Amino acid sequence: MNKVNLAEKFALFEDHWTPRLVGTVDDYDIKLVKVQGEFVWHKHDIEDELFFVVRGRMTIDFRDRSVDLGQGELLVVPKGVEHRPRANRECEVMLFERGGVVNTGDAAVSELTRQTLDRI
Amino acid sequence: MNKVNLAEKFALFEDHWTPRLVGTVDDYDIKLVKVQGEFVWHKHDIEDELFFVVRGRMTIDFRDRSVDLGQGELLVVPKGVEHRPRANRECEVMLFERGGVVNTGDAAVSELTRQTLDRI
Repeated sequence: MNKVNLAEKFALFEDHWTPRLVGTVDDYDIKLVKVQGEFVWHKHDIEDELFFVVRGRMTIDFRDRSVDLGQGELLVVPKGVEHRPRANRECEVMLFERGGVVNTGDAAVSELTRQTLDRI
Repeated sequence: MNKVNLAEKFALFEDHWTPRLVGTVDDYDIKLVKVQGEFVWHKHDIEDELFFVVRGRMTIDFRDRSVDLGQGELLVVPKGVEHRPRANRECEVMLFERGGVVNTGDAAVSELTRQTLDRI
């Protein structure tokens, strides 16, 4: 039962689109990820997904609109809804979703796919 | 599916120890609460509880130690572990836990108990 300092954890890695596990709440994962560039379109059929921007700005595209998120803003992407995260500049994000969710969801496995997570 | 700006939401209320619901991830609640003073000792027998400090500082007492949390720090209190949140000055906190959790847990119902939450 140790506290997690988000800034210290984000300082431990530099790559983009690879979430790190920093804690769990019951069966749910608390993950940190740095995003930059454009992710793949995908959806998660049975899990909602929380994006919380810790630093920077990002956009989540949906098929009919886009939502810009700045520091201190969060969005829950409902299960089954196609979305594409992207960011012009590096953005630090905290994710909260059920454990075992694959980041690329229903999209074909790609170089962006992460099946398992390092805990930092 | 609207984004949540934490600062805007915290500006909507002033009282302490009454969590407001701002979103859900599957069956889990995202709640905001302002804390100041000392809460009651309690535990939640079957749910972990995430505390994330958005602004200010707070302390979570355990029977054998205390953990200080500052802005950008989080702690997951495991199920079954007695704890007492407190803060000398007002502190803004985001909580994440299973829906339906009563804030005072197993402690006797008191003036601090909130059985249901307003969504803001």
